[in-house]
Amino acid sequence: MAQQHLDPTDPTAGTAPTGDALAGYLRAQATEFLRALRLHRETGSGPNGTAEAVDAARALRRSVRRISGSLHTFRPLLETDWSESLRPELAWLSGTLSMEHAYAARLDRLLLALHRLSGAAVFPAQSAGGPAPAARSDLTSAERGNLTVGAAKAGALLERQLTLARTRAHSTALQALGSSRFHAVADKVAVLASEVPLTPTAAGADLSPLATAAQERLTDAVTGLPLVTAGHPYNAEALIHGLSPDPAPHPQDAPWHQVRLLLRLHRYSREVLLGDTALVDVRLLDAGQALDRHRDASEAAAAAASAARTPRIAPATAYALGVLHADQRHEVEGARFVFQQAWQRQEVRAS
Amino acid sequence: MAQQHLDPTDPTAGTAPTGDALAGYLRAQATEFLRALRLHRETGSGPNGTAEAVDAARALRRSVRRISGSLHTFRPLLETDWSESLRPELAWLSGTLSMEHAYAARLDRLLLALHRLSGAAVFPAQSAGGPAPAARSDLTSAERGNLTVGAAKAGALLERQLTLARTRAHSTALQALGSSRFHAVADKVAVLASEVPLTPTAAGADLSPLATAAQERLTDAVTGLPLVTAGHPYNAEALIHGLSPDPAPHPQDAPWHQVRLLLRLHRYSREVLLGDTALVDVRLLDAGQALDRHRDASEAAAAAASAARTPRIAPATAYALGVLHADQRHEVEGARFVFQQAWQRQEVRAS
Repeated sequence: MAQQHLDPTDPTAGTAPTGDALAGYLRAQATEFLRALRLHRETGSGPNGTAEAVDAARALRRSVRRISGSLHTFRPLLETDWSESLRPELAWLSGTLSMEHAYAARLDRLLLALHRLSGAAVFPAQSAGGPAPAARSDLTSAERGNLTVGAAKAGALLERQLTLARTRAHSTALQALGSSRFHAVADKVAVLASEVPLTPTAAGADLSPLATAAQERLTDAVTGLPLVTAGHPYNAEALIHGLSPDPAPHPQDAPWHQVRLLLRLHRYSREVLLGDTALVDVRLLDAGQALDRHRDASEAAAAAASAARTPRIAPATAYALGVLHADQRHEVEGARFVFQQAWQRQEVRAS
Repeated sequence: MAQQHLDPTDPTAGTAPTGDALAGYLRAQATEFLRALRLHRETGSGPNGTAEAVDAARALRRSVRRISGSLHTFRPLLETDWSESLRPELAWLSGTLSMEHAYAARLDRLLLALHRLSGAAVFPAQSAGGPAPAARSDLTSAERGNLTVGAAKAGALLERQLTLARTRAHSTALQALGSSRFHAVADKVAVLASEVPLTPTAAGADLSPLATAAQERLTDAVTGLPLVTAGHPYNAEALIHGLSPDPAPHPQDAPWHQVRLLLRLHRYSREVLLGDTALVDVRLLDAGQALDRHRDASEAAAAAASAARTPRIAPATAYALGVLHADQRHEVEGARFVFQQAWQRQEVRAS
């Protein structure tokens, strides 16, 4: 039943992965967590960390997400008390660790967009799969000189606001990593690296029904998305409410964010079943990257709108922020289109 | 040779239209001009004219464009002195008559966009083929109440600026219609309604080579457009330079405007050849409407940017104008996409 949704060329097809595969996956991710943590401590933790420190933080977040996701999807196979106490701690850790990176990436995205909108030379695009953006924006003062007054002031305002947020997030993450709460999580993960608390019957239990359930949660959520609209380019949907008096103007984004999380859970459960994190379904990857871009652009648009509410800014600054906000909302719309295209490809293949 | 580009299902295929067909077409358009002019005088000329007055003005512009375009495309078949003296006068008339409508349509487009961006109820869209927008915007004060302060102020500013421009254009058009310069044009068109000054050999001359040349000018110009980019939705091209310090930030629009004019000339020359203005190639119509929308959105975006340079406006107003500018530039990009799709359909059919 589960296999019908999986890749027919899958080398493990025909075998039925069991709780042992889950235990192996969790041990590997826990080991990866410990390795990344050690690397993170060795490479220093200043706010403008080295590329190694950035990589270590990313690996840490990556393993936390995978452990947390697997605990969620395969919950019935794991000791309840243990998994129910660990899961909120992993969510706290994941959230705390991701903020600094998110603010840095948001600033980079917005400054690159301002440059594009100013007709400045094109910068090397940061691909979602490539290295994390450097902690500081790479724009030189000569490149900044190409901006109009409004764009330059908007950039400076965003840089001030998002750098402050990022610095705070950095301190919060450092405090978290030194806290007893974190040490308790790290201890639990250290135990997980050698011993996974499966339920008595889990070792031989088939993982497929739980993986299929995760996939069905994804499929159901996608069914609720306005994919017909998203498949018609330039539908102008994402910018509706762009000037709304509503304080939460983009509730339309929430279902997409939810699908992003469910897609990630589905992807991780596939990793568990296939026993290999390197075997990636390109379509799932494309769809997931589109939803990452959707989330990033949505939050960048909100940051531009928020900056425009700063008291006493010049009209030229506000104008540039308005253009920037709309530009990012169009990126939101474009990401939905790309997701629709990727998802459609996937459905054709599955039928 | 010319027929290979025309519709194979064309009922007139096989016959070779001659200068007589051109004379018939010009006589019909001149008669239409005189009819529209009489109607325009009868229906009054106040700035908030009736629907009949708006229709009459539209019919007047329509016939002027067709006479002017045919004089251009079939120039070698017409008496040189006569056509060379009439063409600049028709261009002047066409330009003068179109401004009032253009400002009114631009204001409507921008106010509708502001409403859409504010998440207000959707208004009945004005299709390019439908009746011209009413002289005054139809927004009620309750509908305006749904706007944020910024959107409302931006709307009021645009209404002030574009209504002023429209009122001036109305006066200019009225003055023009009462001028001796206009009466000289009208007299020439009245003669044209009964007697078309063809060259001695034109009556039996084949129109096809000149029509084909018009089509080739169009095809050549389209070849110069960035259609590959335009065919990739959400390419973010149209908003590049949106914050540029360049005072003429959108030179990228000019080739599209040029294609719009050449497409119109090709369409009119087809009308001459087919002897029927009602036989419309749907693809040409779609492509032409996309280019009309391109031009309208381009000019609306420029109007929003221009309004944002008004001294002493509030930051919230400037922000709304920035969002509006970007929204209209996105419409520009969307119109290019639609043109690319329509043009592609046409090429498949022609091969």
